[in-house]
Amino acid sequence: MSENGALPRLGKVLTVDTMNPNVKKVDYAVRGPIVQRAVQIEKELKEGVKKPFEEVIKANIGDAHAMGQQPITFFRQVMALCTYPQLLDDNKFPEDTKSRARRILQSCGGNSIGAYTTSQGIDCVRHDVANYIQRRDGGIPSDPDNIYLTTGASDGIVTILKLLTAGEGRTRTGVMISIPQYPLYSASIAELGAVQVNYYLNEEKCWSLDISELQRSLQAAREHCIPRVLCIINPGNPTGQVQSRQCIEDVIKFAAKENLFLMADEVYQDNVYAEGCEFHSFKKVLFEMGPEYSSKVELASFHSTSKCYMGECGFRGGYMEVINMDPEVKAQLTKLVSVRLCPPAPGQALMDLVVNSPQPGEPSYQTFIKERTAILSALAEKAKLTEEILNTVPGISCNPVQGAMYSFPCIALPERAINAAKAKGQAPDMFYCMKLLEETGICLVPGSGFGQREGTYHFRMTILPPTDKLKILLNKLKEFHQKFTQQYS
Amino acid sequence: MSENGALPRLGKVLTVDTMNPNVKKVDYAVRGPIVQRAVQIEKELKEGVKKPFEEVIKANIGDAHAMGQQPITFFRQVMALCTYPQLLDDNKFPEDTKSRARRILQSCGGNSIGAYTTSQGIDCVRHDVANYIQRRDGGIPSDPDNIYLTTGASDGIVTILKLLTAGEGRTRTGVMISIPQYPLYSASIAELGAVQVNYYLNEEKCWSLDISELQRSLQAAREHCIPRVLCIINPGNPTGQVQSRQCIEDVIKFAAKENLFLMADEVYQDNVYAEGCEFHSFKKVLFEMGPEYSSKVELASFHSTSKCYMGECGFRGGYMEVINMDPEVKAQLTKLVSVRLCPPAPGQALMDLVVNSPQPGEPSYQTFIKERTAILSALAEKAKLTEEILNTVPGISCNPVQGAMYSFPCIALPERAINAAKAKGQAPDMFYCMKLLEETGICLVPGSGFGQREGTYHFRMTILPPTDKLKILLNKLKEFHQKFTQQYS
Repeated sequence: MSENGALPRLGKVLTVDTMNPNVKKVDYAVRGPIVQRAVQIEKELKEGVKKPFEEVIKANIGDAHAMGQQPITFFRQVMALCTYPQLLDDNKFPEDTKSRARRILQSCGGNSIGAYTTSQGIDCVRHDVANYIQRRDGGIPSDPDNIYLTTGASDGIVTILKLLTAGEGRTRTGVMISIPQYPLYSASIAELGAVQVNYYLNEEKCWSLDISELQRSLQAAREHCIPRVLCIINPGNPTGQVQSRQCIEDVIKFAAKENLFLMADEVYQDNVYAEGCEFHSFKKVLFEMGPEYSSKVELASFHSTSKCYMGECGFRGGYMEVINMDPEVKAQLTKLVSVRLCPPAPGQALMDLVVNSPQPGEPSYQTFIKERTAILSALAEKAKLTEEILNTVPGISCNPVQGAMYSFPCIALPERAINAAKAKGQAPDMFYCMKLLEETGICLVPGSGFGQREGTYHFRMTILPPTDKLKILLNKLKEFHQKFTQQYS
Repeated sequence: MSENGALPRLGKVLTVDTMNPNVKKVDYAVRGPIVQRAVQIEKELKEGVKKPFEEVIKANIGDAHAMGQQPITFFRQVMALCTYPQLLDDNKFPEDTKSRARRILQSCGGNSIGAYTTSQGIDCVRHDVANYIQRRDGGIPSDPDNIYLTTGASDGIVTILKLLTAGEGRTRTGVMISIPQYPLYSASIAELGAVQVNYYLNEEKCWSLDISELQRSLQAAREHCIPRVLCIINPGNPTGQVQSRQCIEDVIKFAAKENLFLMADEVYQDNVYAEGCEFHSFKKVLFEMGPEYSSKVELASFHSTSKCYMGECGFRGGYMEVINMDPEVKAQLTKLVSVRLCPPAPGQALMDLVVNSPQPGEPSYQTFIKERTAILSALAEKAKLTEEILNTVPGISCNPVQGAMYSFPCIALPERAINAAKAKGQAPDMFYCMKLLEETGICLVPGSGFGQREGTYHFRMTILPPTDKLKILLNKLKEFHQKFTQQYS
């Protein structure tokens, strides 16, 4: 109080001028202004405002269930049993769902999924993850002590980036990320105050990764920071490419030679559609390259319950495997994750079911396989459809969607549209996507949110809407693009 | 590769010397070395190693279900329905559980709890939280736009601290925390590189908070940083005190006068046991103080599904309410939380049930009230029991456990024990707790993990074990303390 008892007239403690400057630099396009406007438009539609469309189609985010994909029955049955164990007496649930639930509950404190788990994650889940990786990678061993369960893959990625961020000014940690990239990376780098080091994917060669470009990017970055991490997303987000085994080997050699920590974001490992393409994990390739590499290169790889055929984004389940991590650093990692107590137990349980799915002979096997196959075939069909229809549009050119859940086509924008965007202070592809949203209800994310070569424009579109809706969407998009081009030509 | 093709012999990229220096400074006693040793001992017992006890009793962490507390039936029924909606056709579930589940699912993308939610949290849940706060606070309005759902309270607390951390050197943000404190605070402050500013609670007056001590602490801190935040935990962790309305009013006046952002950690709001004690939320007191304060003081308050009578720690559910936050900062907050996509949807749904529990006349009401009352009465009884038995031990003095879930007694340690600890490089109370664990299997957390006045020693013990086990634990502890005192006298 001042002398006369009145409160002093001070401004707010927390303002944009006094807040964490790194947070201000954070950008996350996938949930940016376009999406906020889409939510507004949905409200307006509900309130009866007339629009040239009846619903907003959100093709901005890899959210399968929101697009109508049904959950896998086996997963949800076991989760219901874990949640309300009284159902274990119910004969409507197959025996294998019950035995899975019992096993998970036995690993929980007080047999309750409501207890904290160990910070690294439930023991039996980490064992199951290790077994899964070993099977997936043709027998190359995986150690449960190297597995950390996470709150979705994002959580794991941020945690490893956090460990790696150090130095000041020219000694600050540089993080090499692909352009286009998934904006979790740029956002986390900004938040941590690390240095973003861009390497460009080769759009002409189906978004492939050229080692010469890695070399160029590294060289340039060494002028102003210390690049210490190389991040790879495979299958690619937002670009949908699937890396060849050779490319992965070359990347590992590059990381070894240049002393870079490798981060492999492999959350789309089951989402491979194109003929001749196959998923190779960085872990497997690393170990196939022999001890010269497998005993040396530091690698963290990430997986999640949110993508593939599961699409269980809401559960925030995930894991990471760390390879060749210095044991003292690992102890620091374990300490760091303990501050947040534990990842959500339901997400951990779900991750367990993903890596330990029904086996031939078990009662749930047939249904499980049927459901999984149906989802993955539909995605493959929609990947093809998207590429085909988009490439019929003059001014749009779309690489094959080899994997993941997105197309990232290049769009030709007329000079006048670019100028109109600049006049509004918008990126040209933001201007395009905003207009698309207002006129058709289709919600996409502009390429500028992911990064792209100067002077090129793109958008990211998920392939997740149901096939009939996807066709409507693609045709509306085609029509819009033609109209837009005409209008600004 | 070097000229001859061999890889250069470089050390690891990531070592304790090159890692994030702030992460190294992080400490989290609740899951520290004592707990790691307890886990080891449990393994040894399983392997048949002979010990002077048969089981480890973990009284180190507020993990109710792990200590045998049963989940609330209503919560788990609705969660099972949300997880596996086919059960909505099952007539074993009461109608009110079904209507809650339907309402939650209707707010989820694709009616699935597996879809991402909005980053701030499911709309209808935020509305229910706002209604709950309004009821709790005697009608003082709460705006759903000020509610952010979180991954447990910890997540919310770290997020707000992150926003507040800025400056360098002497302009670095200072965060005022009570000593003893819950180590999430010190850990997050270290990780963010903010400055920890200690104010001491008054053990002689039942761990109360003296404004003169806040003033002293603030004055001293202003010499080397800019204190901008004042954190309060009420009911107290680890100290179990419940703040009086007058004290809260004084704290708010202090924050207003000194221009401090208030963070009120109120996760134990239903855990009040002592006669004459009552929970007052900071929000309510702030608004009762009139517009001079209620229009000015910036406040964030936190709640969780993990404590109170729920004990659903594994779900990682929680919310925060922000009051008087600058609208531009709020936009930054919304952007920041969007990078992690969303809090776990099951935790959000559970939070909804906590704030929107069965009402009189609904089929689940009777059972719900019976279960809740039983848990809270048992906790009240155990709070009393703990205080009483501990105070019969010469050399242990324990304040009343007015609320929360912990006792934090002061222990007198003989000079020789202190020297023996020093010789081992251990804090004296760590030495004591480690010995207690090895000899009795009881796992407590040493007071040094929470902070305490120089030259005093404490431990934190939860009151959560079942009454019969708690009695055994307390008597074993008594016996140990007497033996220990004798041995080192």
